[in-house]
Amino acid sequence: MADRPIKELNWKTPLEAARKPSLNQIAKMGICGIMDPIAPGVPPGSDTATLALLGYDVLKVYSGRGAIEAIGSGINVSPSDVAFRCNFATVNENLVVLDRRAGRIADEDAVKLAESLQKIRLQKPSVKFLFKNTIQHRAALVVRGQKLSTAVSDSDPGKVGVRVLEIKPLDESPEARLTAKILNELMHKFSKVLKDHPLNKKRARRGLPQANIILCRGAGTIPNTKPLSELYDINAVCIAATSLIRGVCKVAGMKLVDIKGATGTPQTNFVAKAKSTVQALKACDFVLLHVKATDVASHDGNIKQKVELIEKIDHMIGYVLDNIDPVSTYLAVTADHTTSSITQNHEGDPVPVAITGPYVRRDDVEEFDERSCAKGGLNRIRGMDLTPILMNLIGKTRKFGA
Amino acid sequence: MADRPIKELNWKTPLEAARKPSLNQIAKMGICGIMDPIAPGVPPGSDTATLALLGYDVLKVYSGRGAIEAIGSGINVSPSDVAFRCNFATVNENLVVLDRRAGRIADEDAVKLAESLQKIRLQKPSVKFLFKNTIQHRAALVVRGQKLSTAVSDSDPGKVGVRVLEIKPLDESPEARLTAKILNELMHKFSKVLKDHPLNKKRARRGLPQANIILCRGAGTIPNTKPLSELYDINAVCIAATSLIRGVCKVAGMKLVDIKGATGTPQTNFVAKAKSTVQALKACDFVLLHVKATDVASHDGNIKQKVELIEKIDHMIGYVLDNIDPVSTYLAVTADHTTSSITQNHEGDPVPVAITGPYVRRDDVEEFDERSCAKGGLNRIRGMDLTPILMNLIGKTRKFGA
Repeated sequence: MADRPIKELNWKTPLEAARKPSLNQIAKMGICGIMDPIAPGVPPGSDTATLALLGYDVLKVYSGRGAIEAIGSGINVSPSDVAFRCNFATVNENLVVLDRRAGRIADEDAVKLAESLQKIRLQKPSVKFLFKNTIQHRAALVVRGQKLSTAVSDSDPGKVGVRVLEIKPLDESPEARLTAKILNELMHKFSKVLKDHPLNKKRARRGLPQANIILCRGAGTIPNTKPLSELYDINAVCIAATSLIRGVCKVAGMKLVDIKGATGTPQTNFVAKAKSTVQALKACDFVLLHVKATDVASHDGNIKQKVELIEKIDHMIGYVLDNIDPVSTYLAVTADHTTSSITQNHEGDPVPVAITGPYVRRDDVEEFDERSCAKGGLNRIRGMDLTPILMNLIGKTRKFGA
Repeated sequence: MADRPIKELNWKTPLEAARKPSLNQIAKMGICGIMDPIAPGVPPGSDTATLALLGYDVLKVYSGRGAIEAIGSGINVSPSDVAFRCNFATVNENLVVLDRRAGRIADEDAVKLAESLQKIRLQKPSVKFLFKNTIQHRAALVVRGQKLSTAVSDSDPGKVGVRVLEIKPLDESPEARLTAKILNELMHKFSKVLKDHPLNKKRARRGLPQANIILCRGAGTIPNTKPLSELYDINAVCIAATSLIRGVCKVAGMKLVDIKGATGTPQTNFVAKAKSTVQALKACDFVLLHVKATDVASHDGNIKQKVELIEKIDHMIGYVLDNIDPVSTYLAVTADHTTSSITQNHEGDPVPVAITGPYVRRDDVEEFDERSCAKGGLNRIRGMDLTPILMNLIGKTRKFGA
């Protein structure tokens, strides 16, 4: 949601340009500030930012996106597993990448291809793998066995027009060498299966880019963290569609709710998410409601769509505001990172944050945007401060000292 | 002193509601901000907060209240000693706690009982103990010997209506087992002496709760820290009545001043403390003047009293302001934590802070309270930043680098 000032918006940010009465209402009733999701100037990933917003020190606990994406997709990842974030992609006969997302392949195609890939057998029988598609071209790969390592490079070159990379060990250990070897074997076998897959032939006939390779990146293990239930004695619920955010919430021990029509895209059902949030709040202490759509618009550089999506989010927040008990509920709104519609990347600028509820020290900020909130009573905090602040407001923090 | 907005005060905080010309004068002349004693959202103890305000990284150096309380009570605690915070309390014949404070027993009764307890001998002659009453029902116990451990549980159940707890080792070490055994022996012998003590029989005749048991909690050792004199080449003085604060200041190597009439209660002699502060400033570099009273009122949920006590503190500060040399003296006012008069607990909200003196970057804040200070030039700092900031202003910090 957060952005930088944009010339096309008369040097306003999309948040400043949008009509957002409910977000402003929260700013008016509450205490505002700006927040560095990780640290000033550090562009956060969606996973690290969300982990930080849930109170974790990501600089200490985070080791790559793969495991979080895999957990979010429903794979039970063990601490010794090595996991990767994958894309279905399109390459030519020389393995030069033509489309890193295989035309943003539809879920129903991806699931069929993933099922075929899962049937592959590795040479080394003691090593197993789990491959699962998530949303569109996105997938997760988990490699399970003794003596594996996260010290391996990516096969994903990160851009089109260049050749797919061989996976290499990043240190001298036998574990890294073994893991790289297994990954290269898998990538090769995946390609073979995909190339000959009837569904790809069908896609070619329909003029769609073939999903003829899997690109993998971000080797990692699951973060070694305590669940929120243990840290704060709460039960917590996650309302999010993207598997990365769901993975983060699962790492935090939160209950995942499935919402019909919540897709992690600009076409998501905002109202269904709001209704589920109100419902969830009746039975639990803490709900994280996450919307991915504005980030998608920013990555596409679609400024107009970003403003419209902020207005839809505002409408969604309005429903939540109208249907919760203001005497007993605290509500915080923020972004997990700044995404610039100009650079189309996550950026290290701080995000606005506002908290409303019975006993906050209300300030005189009247609008929820990057610059108004910078004048608020919270001043400038870190992402990992937000959950302790909220837990303290609802009486769930423990005193440190006597 | 710091609090949250309260409905009864028309959603002002007690600081916002109080008449406080001298505190406002400091805000006007100085630079203001808000401060997280430990970290945003973390409710501090009085000991950890004060240690942090003196510049120490409590998350690294703090290991329990017992040793600090013991030092504050005048016991010379060695690094190998294990110390406990104790209460004189009242139990029935089944060891069910009736009053955790034995009717807030008067100091003159507590000192007599403590003297009797100190005469007890332990079975193991190589282990010694020191027991000392502090204020009212509060006392400190230090166990001294080879191979002791802080890994033991409390005998204090923390509430009335339940039985006193047996002290248990918290790990498998022989040290923890030995320490638990010694503590249980001591607790048992203490009870026996107290039960038959003539003073308790007298209390019973006068209708007062008998102080017939000692409850102990918070096993700890002294923090491993360097004194302020070594860190900043200063001599520092503490003006405080509560033994916990005095203990913290002694840990910091500060000189403790005894003030007639300073009691650590709402009835303390504010003016005597102010006079001692002015006097101490003539001979030393740094004085910590601490008032406990507002915290007591908050824990009692007595909003009216809290406002009145803030006004008394303001009067005390006025005396200091009028009697120091403004050309050579810096003055900082703050709270060691937020105590909510509603929850009656320490809370993790930040506290206001104002610093005045010849060369501060004066801002435009005009009132000393939680929300006005949030707009000040200090922005939001951590408790452990305050002493370095002050030491820098008086030219006592060393350059880091070349």
